[in-house]
Amino acid sequence: MKVGIIGGTGGIGQGMALRLSQTHTVYIGSRIEEKAQAACELCGYALKVLGLPFDLLPTTNQGVVDESEIVVFSIPAENLERTIEGLTGLEGKIVISLMNPMIRTDFFKYNPPEDGSAALKLQKLLPESKVVAAFNNIPAGKWQQLSEPLDYSVCVCSDFDDAKERVMELVNSISELKALDAGPLAVSPYIEAITPLVINIARFSKMRDVGVYFK
Amino acid sequence: MKVGIIGGTGGIGQGMALRLSQTHTVYIGSRIEEKAQAACELCGYALKVLGLPFDLLPTTNQGVVDESEIVVFSIPAENLERTIEGLTGLEGKIVISLMNPMIRTDFFKYNPPEDGSAALKLQKLLPESKVVAAFNNIPAGKWQQLSEPLDYSVCVCSDFDDAKERVMELVNSISELKALDAGPLAVSPYIEAITPLVINIARFSKMRDVGVYFK
Repeated sequence: MKVGIIGGTGGIGQGMALRLSQTHTVYIGSRIEEKAQAACELCGYALKVLGLPFDLLPTTNQGVVDESEIVVFSIPAENLERTIEGLTGLEGKIVISLMNPMIRTDFFKYNPPEDGSAALKLQKLLPESKVVAAFNNIPAGKWQQLSEPLDYSVCVCSDFDDAKERVMELVNSISELKALDAGPLAVSPYIEAITPLVINIARFSKMRDVGVYFK
Repeated sequence: MKVGIIGGTGGIGQGMALRLSQTHTVYIGSRIEEKAQAACELCGYALKVLGLPFDLLPTTNQGVVDESEIVVFSIPAENLERTIEGLTGLEGKIVISLMNPMIRTDFFKYNPPEDGSAALKLQKLLPESKVVAAFNNIPAGKWQQLSEPLDYSVCVCSDFDDAKERVMELVNSISELKALDAGPLAVSPYIEAITPLVINIARFSKMRDVGVYFK
């Protein structure tokens, strides 16, 4: 598949690119194309050292939309409106939200927008797109640690069955990830809230890069 | 430890009793003592067949409070007020909430009270007790299936460090459960919301008795 990552120069975005580009065509997008170019170079070096094949291309955020079948929003939830403002052509596309809005007080607090979750807000901002929440609970460190398999569960939810199915295929094509159908997009708050939960667990239980497995 | 289960005749309560009574003294409580007696008999038969030791006693909900160091509220969240109304002597006690308020629409929806979660509401109703959220995400079927180890993660949160520590000890004493310190009681909504999430996953992904493991 052709997958593009808006905000692909962040830790999660780069980590996803490292894993996905081994079997898919991946576009790393950024507001500033030079940043995308630098991220692609860095990821390319790592994959070359490991002797792994990859198909990885830098572009702008608009370039991601133009080139990709599946567009991943890997940006801080608070940047959502301003990122979408400049983009055209998202109608009909599969759009993945892995955003987990949170704030730090004396613990990490889930901080959803009024719409209930970042994914629900994205769907409202893009009523003509097919929003799917997925990949919310995989720590950046685990994405990037290519020497280890990624053996986590990935909750996938959406109001569009065809889009959900396609994203579940994508999930199951990556390392040892296992896609789970969690139902409609209305369950996305529970999935997003797991991320502050595991960050709290990591902090209070002195662990690192905690992910989730359902069994 | 002496552990009492208010609402111990339900599926989760009986399952907990089966597991805990092998190494702790467990009081099964009910509004109606005869129901507690029947549940104790049933659990006792199962444990005898398996040749397992157990220490299991029937009592009323008030009996649970009187006899136990740790009191577990294993009741539907909507019965909380009316269950507490009749009870005395909970001051200073460790009180475990494993309640997950939810409603069923076209999917299972987390339905917390105004206070933010069932555990936070319980703490408000019992300001002199030490409320700990724990055991929220273990399916009844897995509690009861004594032929299988219980190898799940158990998120534990509380505003009382001594109570949290003691409950984590209790968790770690049962089968292969692993207690994780998730921080203050304010994170309990994220833990409670995992239960409707896994019920949705079970339904939409055609699985049964889905539990959670953090790694």
